[in-house]
Amino acid sequence: MIYTVTLNPAIDYVIRVPEFQVDQLNKTTEEYKFPGGKGINVSRILKNLDVESINLGFVGGFTGSFIRNKLSEERLITDFIEVPGDTRINIKLKSDVETEINGQGPTIESVHLHALKSQLSDCTSSDLIVFSGSIPKGVSEDIYTELVQLVSELNIPFVVDISSEKLLDILKFSPTLIKPNHHELADIFNTSFNSFEEMIPYGQKLVAMGAENVLLSMGKDGAALFNETGVYRAPGLVGQLKNSVGSGDSMVAGFVSQLSQEKEILEAFKYGVASGSATAFNDDLAPGKDILALVEKVKINKLT
Amino acid sequence: MIYTVTLNPAIDYVIRVPEFQVDQLNKTTEEYKFPGGKGINVSRILKNLDVESINLGFVGGFTGSFIRNKLSEERLITDFIEVPGDTRINIKLKSDVETEINGQGPTIESVHLHALKSQLSDCTSSDLIVFSGSIPKGVSEDIYTELVQLVSELNIPFVVDISSEKLLDILKFSPTLIKPNHHELADIFNTSFNSFEEMIPYGQKLVAMGAENVLLSMGKDGAALFNETGVYRAPGLVGQLKNSVGSGDSMVAGFVSQLSQEKEILEAFKYGVASGSATAFNDDLAPGKDILALVEKVKINKLT
Repeated sequence: MIYTVTLNPAIDYVIRVPEFQVDQLNKTTEEYKFPGGKGINVSRILKNLDVESINLGFVGGFTGSFIRNKLSEERLITDFIEVPGDTRINIKLKSDVETEINGQGPTIESVHLHALKSQLSDCTSSDLIVFSGSIPKGVSEDIYTELVQLVSELNIPFVVDISSEKLLDILKFSPTLIKPNHHELADIFNTSFNSFEEMIPYGQKLVAMGAENVLLSMGKDGAALFNETGVYRAPGLVGQLKNSVGSGDSMVAGFVSQLSQEKEILEAFKYGVASGSATAFNDDLAPGKDILALVEKVKINKLT
Repeated sequence: MIYTVTLNPAIDYVIRVPEFQVDQLNKTTEEYKFPGGKGINVSRILKNLDVESINLGFVGGFTGSFIRNKLSEERLITDFIEVPGDTRINIKLKSDVETEINGQGPTIESVHLHALKSQLSDCTSSDLIVFSGSIPKGVSEDIYTELVQLVSELNIPFVVDISSEKLLDILKFSPTLIKPNHHELADIFNTSFNSFEEMIPYGQKLVAMGAENVLLSMGKDGAALFNETGVYRAPGLVGQLKNSVGSGDSMVAGFVSQLSQEKEILEAFKYGVASGSATAFNDDLAPGKDILALVEKVKINKLT
């Protein structure tokens, strides 16, 4: 079974306010609420690809109930740990420009972390755990390193998609997959890139440091895959960008969907690129049929 | 029993964002959620003054459950009608300046309006109904006139606090109290005022048109009461303004709290002014002790 871990879920509260003005009373003309958080996005895309997963993480309050209920309506499986306080609300304010206001979410205490670790300890080497997303209040910046060490000692394969420099700390535990984007790759190594060619040695370095697969997403320029067998490049697919939110999570989900079916790693790469692009071409996370329609359009070139 | 009617309740989601920037990702540093809506505010202040009331109106979804639960925790009585869709969220964004973003709330259908009318029809002349606040989607601008006509035909006394010009339409049904502020008084008569003296004939006109009592609030300049016995003025109380939100609702509640105890109308006026001021001097709606401490400080002068 695939488990996705979302430490700090959110309600994504998407509102449209024509001519938004600071210092005034504004009124929304459109409103949408979605269960948000990177791990939850991964599970929702997996579901769209008919792959089951179980959502783990921390939820609380009436906003947490919203997330439980919405996921349940979508027939996703959850095994969240209930915490005191309300799951946060992240406001996505769409006007002439887009403005985001992220809430804080509950403070996680050691008893809750202990409960999560206990859940993870019950997994086995036939499971796969996806760690992604931001770290809630009360929790150490080293939490992903701790959790990864725990599952690694139990030989449970895992995927990590975080944007902190702590990503380097987890490489020695041999993640099955990490998925930095080109900005994150630059940040991790405190550098900058003018071309894809300049990124190649850094992708390779992540493999040398322990990552089994490095999926490098580059927005409209497509993606690259680095592993022990070489470097692969998939050019960006053609389509109209509607929504970059959740595109990276979709890429992770697409990749993982094939891993769990023991498909070739390049098939996983194809599904990753197709899923990321399909979400970018949709208003919300991509439906399965949109992903499948793109899979055969993904071209992969082996570079080294 | 006092009934307060809130057609379009809200969660007031108060967030602090230091240096809020449009077109960026912002993060909150403080978050509070309150059950909001003018009728609900009136009931909460009444409770603080140890006067029972029943909250009527429409709530829906997980945000509606939040409001039910919070009011229940405060031991307020509710008899809300459940509607499809989520009760709205009104964002109060505090940064260098204050910005408000009001949500839309559910669409109310005729079946729900019918249920509300049925509740009101069960009231008697020993009850008092307080109508206040904005009109939800799907409901005619004439809704307050309709509801007021209904209760008036049943000889049920009622209070109306709305900021629409429709206020004039309800005067012929003899409201026990209306509470325009000085801006609303000017808007109703499509005029403007340079002094309190200029407002007096307009306050008197509202009485002549049918209002039993007209409570005119003027912010830091205090308030005036108009009725058949004359015109009364209460100068503003001295204190530090912290929060004007809910001050008008508190004034209504203070006034109504005494009516229900069959106190003299000028005692009701005193409680109205004290309650409005106490809330203005507090971060949230005023506690009862703050109101009681101000009551004796209210000075009333009879002008005519």
